Parts: sequence; C-alpha cells; structure tokens
Amino acid sequence: MNQSISVSLTPSELSPECDLHQACSIIIDVLRATSVMATAGQSGVRRMITCENIHAAAQFADQAAIRPLLCGERHCKPIDGFDLGNSPAEYTPERVADRDLVLTTTNGTRAIHAAMRSRRLLAASFLNLDATLAAVRSEPHLQIVCAGTNGQISYEDVLLAGAIIDRLAPPDSDGSEPSGHIDDSARIAWSVWRQADGNTRPLQQSLRHSLGGRNLIEAGYEADLERCAQVGTIDGIVERAEPGKTVFEFRRLAVSK
Amino acid sequence: MNQSISVSLTPSELSPECDLHQACSIIIDVLRATSVMATAGQSGVRRMITCENIHAAAQFADQAAIRPLLCGERHCKPIDGFDLGNSPAEYTPERVADRDLVLTTTNGTRAIHAAMRSRRLLAASFLNLDATLAAVRSEPHLQIVCAGTNGQISYEDVLLAGAIIDRLAPPDSDGSEPSGHIDDSARIAWSVWRQADGNTRPLQQSLRHSLGGRNLIEAGYEADLERCAQVGTIDGIVERAEPGKTVFEFRRLAVSK
Repeated sequence: MNQSISVSLTPSELSPECDLHQACSIIIDVLRATSVMATAGQSGVRRMITCENIHAAAQFADQAAIRPLLCGERHCKPIDGFDLGNSPAEYTPERVADRDLVLTTTNGTRAIHAAMRSRRLLAASFLNLDATLAAVRSEPHLQIVCAGTNGQISYEDVLLAGAIIDRLAPPDSDGSEPSGHIDDSARIAWSVWRQADGNTRPLQQSLRHSLGGRNLIEAGYEADLERCAQVGTIDGIVERAEPGKTVFEFRRLAVSK
Repeated sequence: MNQSISVSLTPSELSPECDLHQACSIIIDVLRATSVMATAGQSGVRRMITCENIHAAAQFADQAAIRPLLCGERHCKPIDGFDLGNSPAEYTPERVADRDLVLTTTNGTRAIHAAMRSRRLLAASFLNLDATLAAVRSEPHLQIVCAGTNGQISYEDVLLAGAIIDRLAPPDSDGSEPSGHIDDSARIAWSVWRQADGNTRPLQQSLRHSLGGRNLIEAGYEADLERCAQVGTIDGIVERAEPGKTVFEFRRLAVSK
C-alpha cells in the first residue's frame, strides 16, 4: 500500500500553500473536542456543527429551525449561556440523542477550520481509534492535524497521531522505522507513541503530564483524562457530512479487533 | 537541580512574546550549520559572524579591516563567489585557522537570529554535545531552538534536542518520563531520542531518512551525514561572544566522559 502520511503538530504548520484538496485529513484534539465528538456520536447526536467563535455559534443556533444544543468551552470551562461544556461526561444519550449540536472550543474547532479544504475530514480520538483506522486505511494521502493548545504543541495529540501511524505503517523488519512515505513530523509522532507504548505506564498517566492534561487538572476536570484515554471503545467515525461545511456526522463502523 | 527546559521544534514556535531575556538558548542545525561551526572552531577559526542573507554577508566582508572568509549555502549548495560552502569537510585548519568567517545558511542562521534576545546563545551539534552539556548544566532556564528545514520540522534537529534533554534530565525511576520541568515539545524530543537510541541502527542511518538528510543526499553531500553524526568528538563550545551581535567564538572545554 503506497500511502503517504503527513503530520502537522499544530494547525499553523498547515501553510495556506499546503495542497489538501486530494487529502483525507484527520483532526486530533484528544483533550477534549474530538473525544467529545466521538462520545456525542455514540450517544446518538444527529449532526455536530463546529464554529470558530462563540458569536457565530450563538447566531447559528438562533437561526436554526429547531434549536440545536450550544456546546463548547473557553479555557477548559463551559461558556456562559451554553447548554453543555466540553467534557465527554456531559454527552449522554439523555441529553444529546437526536439533537443537533453546535460546538466551539479553543483548539479543536480551529484545527478543523484550518483543514477545511481537505477532500475528506475526520475527527479522531483514542476512543474511536480503531474505527477511524478502518475508515482511512485505503486513503492514498493522509494529513493528520494536531490541534495543540493555544498554538503550542500538545503531547497528547502527537501521541494519538503516532498511534495512527504505528497502525497504518508498521515498522520495518528491525523495528527502528515506520514503513512507507511519512514526513519528519509523522516520524516524530511515531517515535513518541512507540516510546510511550513501550512503557508500563497506562495512557491516562501519560496524559497527566501533557500541557492539555495539566490545564484540565487545574480546571477541575481530572476525571476527563481517564475518559479520553480509553482506546477503541467507540465503534464509529466522526466525519464531515459535506464539503465546504463544518457539519459532522457519526457513522457506526464494525471493527474487527 | 531545578532546571526548566523548553524546546521550539522550529524557530517560528519562538513567538515574539516568548521571554528569552533570562534564558540560555541552544541553536541546533545538525545538517549542517551548527556542525560546521563546531568543526571550524576546532580547526582554529577566530570569529564566526552569522548573517541572515547573502547581501548582508557580502557587505560585512567588504567593510571588514581584514577580509573574512565568506561561507554558507543556499539549497545545500555553495554560494557563487563565496569562499566556502556548508560542508564540515571544507573547514580544515589549513583553510580557516586564525581567520574570521561570515556564515549565511538557509535555516541555521535564521534560527540564531530568532533567538537573538537570549541572555546566552550557543550553537550545538552532535559533534560537541558533551562540551555543550557541560557548559549549560547549571543554567536555570534552557531554550533549545531547532532550525528545521525551510520552516518545516527536521527529525535530526529534534533528535539532538532529545539527546540534550536525556542527559540533563535523566528519566524517573520507571524510565517512562524525563525528570524536571520540561514542556511538551521537550518531552516529544526526548521520546524521539529515546526511541532512536534504543535501536541498533547507528545515528547516521537515522539521519538518512530525515528531511535534511534526504536533501543532502540528493545534493551530493551524503558523506556529510557521517561527519555530522559523530557524537562528542569536539571538546569545545560555540557561543555568542557578546549580546546583541551574532559573533560566535569557539572555546575549548575539557569534558570528563
């Protein structure tokens, strides 16, 4: 399989010249936007619309025929007047099934907007890693975009990028390099994952020391680290429904493990 | 030791707001600017002045009382009319001893200029890794700046950043994390180094697959990979001589190994 994989460790590495039109892009914001989207999907949400700012989200909600749930965070905290924050724990079937939701978060939705011109656009988390892999395995050009935290590189996003690469481009015979066509940032992400995966330390422990993890603990959301560190517990993908719009849908995908 | 270590995987991660005034910065351009500077230093060069562009370098040379050697590259190749290119092999004692040189390279000198406001400024390579470590061990705040390649992250620079961190902040008892105060990019660099160091593959093999390595091979400088992959063969540091100027000097430093 002649798959090429590129990684942007932050959205700003995706220069405007970067040709995404043929690419399938995977957005990663482990803590917590893309973990929320997978959870909401599993809970039966209808559509997820991402907006870059609070004003646009509220305006969209006001103009919709059936009022969607307003969701998101700023500095890890829920937004005044919004229905839901950015903790996966809030996205239960009771609250979101058959509803549309509008989501605006500090980093995740920005990363989505940076990769808008991609041919396909998925949002991935550890929760739906297996389903996401199944959905992109035959894509010739994959672009992984790590959301990061306020413009800085986030360890946890790079870790998931590396896990994806490790599964799609298994190492060569001596185990020292991933196979296939990958760029330097992808190779870096792969190394980060292999180094962490070789540890005895569970994933959620690794997340505790990351920039995103520390911010969440400080804001009182420590329990979300464990929630976002479950691997492959959700059998479905989060994918943009139509080009040019930031409307995402959840699609169940049976995964052989 | 309460040392904090931050890493910028490219110079552009160093935002103008980044407070470097108290920091000791280490610039890394393994392939090849900082490897050239260490080599030139060992060969007895007097001063190394870095310039961001060809015009400034030529102008500086024209105005100097004693004409310095004009050195550098664009797209890995020597610059028309310049005395030396950017291969360490050219920087022999016969050619550079007791001379000043003016150096302009695509990535390395840009990284130096981005970190100009640092309190101390060193240029490091694998060649003088041990001496550089000895010189910065008691610095409270280290900022490592990877030069990258044309704005993109270069694996080989991140690898050396990781080696520095591994030696300054040895892992905790279970070996899964470096100790001390390091940011996410530093943790990523450390992981990359640990992953590569655990391989049986020699360092120069790792460099072959990096962005900088591939560019060099394509430009006919494959032998430079081996030259730049020697670890700790030069017992001296390359450090800015005075604040506000990009004038570097080589200082011998006895290192206990």
